[in-house]
Amino acid sequence: MLIFGSNKNESIMGNPQTIWFNKEKNLVETIDQRYLPFQNLIVEISTLDEARFAITEMIVRGAPLIGVTAAYGMYLAALNYSGDDFQGALKHTANWLKSSRPTAVNLAFAVDEALSVISGERSISENIQLLIEYAESLKQREIDFSKKIGMLGLELIRSVSKSKNGETVHILTHCNAGRLACVELGTATAPIYMAHEAGIPVHVWVDETRPRNQGARLTAWELGEAGIPHTVIPDNTGGHLMQHQMVDMVIVGSDRTTLNGDVANKIGTYLKALAAADNEIPFYVALPSTTIDWSLSDGINEIPIEQRDGSEVFQMEGLLGDVVHKFRILPEISPVANYGFDVTPARLITGLITERGVCKANRESILKMFPERIPNND
Amino acid sequence: MLIFGSNKNESIMGNPQTIWFNKEKNLVETIDQRYLPFQNLIVEISTLDEARFAITEMIVRGAPLIGVTAAYGMYLAALNYSGDDFQGALKHTANWLKSSRPTAVNLAFAVDEALSVISGERSISENIQLLIEYAESLKQREIDFSKKIGMLGLELIRSVSKSKNGETVHILTHCNAGRLACVELGTATAPIYMAHEAGIPVHVWVDETRPRNQGARLTAWELGEAGIPHTVIPDNTGGHLMQHQMVDMVIVGSDRTTLNGDVANKIGTYLKALAAADNEIPFYVALPSTTIDWSLSDGINEIPIEQRDGSEVFQMEGLLGDVVHKFRILPEISPVANYGFDVTPARLITGLITERGVCKANRESILKMFPERIPNND
Repeated sequence: MLIFGSNKNESIMGNPQTIWFNKEKNLVETIDQRYLPFQNLIVEISTLDEARFAITEMIVRGAPLIGVTAAYGMYLAALNYSGDDFQGALKHTANWLKSSRPTAVNLAFAVDEALSVISGERSISENIQLLIEYAESLKQREIDFSKKIGMLGLELIRSVSKSKNGETVHILTHCNAGRLACVELGTATAPIYMAHEAGIPVHVWVDETRPRNQGARLTAWELGEAGIPHTVIPDNTGGHLMQHQMVDMVIVGSDRTTLNGDVANKIGTYLKALAAADNEIPFYVALPSTTIDWSLSDGINEIPIEQRDGSEVFQMEGLLGDVVHKFRILPEISPVANYGFDVTPARLITGLITERGVCKANRESILKMFPERIPNND
Repeated sequence: MLIFGSNKNESIMGNPQTIWFNKEKNLVETIDQRYLPFQNLIVEISTLDEARFAITEMIVRGAPLIGVTAAYGMYLAALNYSGDDFQGALKHTANWLKSSRPTAVNLAFAVDEALSVISGERSISENIQLLIEYAESLKQREIDFSKKIGMLGLELIRSVSKSKNGETVHILTHCNAGRLACVELGTATAPIYMAHEAGIPVHVWVDETRPRNQGARLTAWELGEAGIPHTVIPDNTGGHLMQHQMVDMVIVGSDRTTLNGDVANKIGTYLKALAAADNEIPFYVALPSTTIDWSLSDGINEIPIEQRDGSEVFQMEGLLGDVVHKFRILPEISPVANYGFDVTPARLITGLITERGVCKANRESILKMFPERIPNND
């Protein structure tokens, strides 16, 4: 796994995408999100192990990007395969990839879809070709979905803007459901990028998003690069802002959405949804249908919530002078807990912004939008 | 203002109090809370300027402790006074002290009460003597209030413990309403200390409390010193824990309570109150009546919310090796906002634990407990 510094303007901003297949080298390249915004580094992923490492260590993160990385991982596994049970080995690989992070459903979805394109009736090299084609098509699908979500969400922002007679629309978001979480544009941020481009004045309240600070580190960086006005706030702040009419709408992403509209997203999302409901502020979840888990209907009881290492809570990265260090912000004696996600019940959600349209967060509305998912026995 | 290192066991833990008058030196000593838990330092406050600096810089913090420090500050101002308008000067001093932090009402209360004990009919030296007596009596009052709050809250914890057949009672708290915020025992923590002493198994979920991390730094330190099981969690976590029956009750403190029961407390308290209400978990506010602002009835619109320096958001203190540094955790380009408090509406509060008893968070119940506060024209 080669990590190399990048000229930001050339390699990251010049390329609107967060992950790409390098045909010449026959490997995958992505931004190392562990070091942003302090360092811009590109990582080469050339083996299955490296793909899994990228997911577990959060070199890549965000449900759509995890899915795409896992699809490339299946390709890399096939590419490097030597043995006499190609299909068996890839099934094993699929399970091993799925175990890398439990909450985002895109991972399992991408891996299973990749598995379904290979066949014992084709040669290994034909299967390898199908796997890279699948990974590339999944990536393109996520790009298309982000664009559609952006266009639909743009109309929601435009409507708030009109109701405010063109005054700045203040949007609160949690964690990073931006282009860094996806391939291009993002999910929650796609409408914001498009509104900004359409000349609608927007300002984004960016939740810091402890413990990993994806809001402060990634979302603020993204929005800053795009020239979108924003303010980083501690996660405790949103309720106060909403009580004082300083938030017009909330848009967040999703790591897994159940058929009844419950949404697992970064820990703390639920608290913002409660505050939005208490202050009658629209709370939208932007999600490609790849994050819908069609098999689940009770988010709080059925979605597994990842527990991560305590070091994310008791350590933090920061700059001392120009050098990035990990420093300890709690004494060693203090025990910590680190839950990665929480579930926002459907009743607190104003609408789901999917690539097919905006719908209510309930089974009926979701299935109306995705009729091919209606179970046969319904 | 002399700051000196202390042998923790001798000077801080040996003395259960957080502030004391040193008669020999004729000055006030307190713990420098800016450096806990990494360094235990004692500060000498010998002038009014130093008292105000201690309040604005949060060497001391917590509504009751701010009040006591301000009362000592009035004494120190009088002690060092030279001029011919003692009363006028002290009135000016009172206003200057009041402006140091806007949200906690104890500050204004203590300063006004101190002002009321002096009189132009007495000699300056008599007035000075009355001022130190007042400060000492306010300090003793806060100690007595904490004890009473502790005993009343203990019964609430005991009752939860019984309903759980003696299983561990899990209590969530936000910020530090511990002995470090008061003089002894604390407000929110007093019931916890007493339950622990009474042999009731308790475990405390300690909200980190960004941006200043008073939970992670002060509450965890206090509880650790007292041997009380606790776990530090990011502020985002409480909702998830409540959804999964991992919190039995919430106890927080208050910086200002209105007559109708609205509570201003550290930013983020409101979000936890929403989650507690959503999950039918009792949400208690422990407060001495010195934090009640009898003149206000609408917390959200009437309580001024302090905005503090952005450096508290973009910098953090931590250990690199054994040395405490301030690290920059956000790029300079990112704008930040830093609101110190939010207001939890009375409707979300199960009960107020005051020194006179536990009452509902509404005007009628509060005035029933403090009948001397019933306005004449009622």
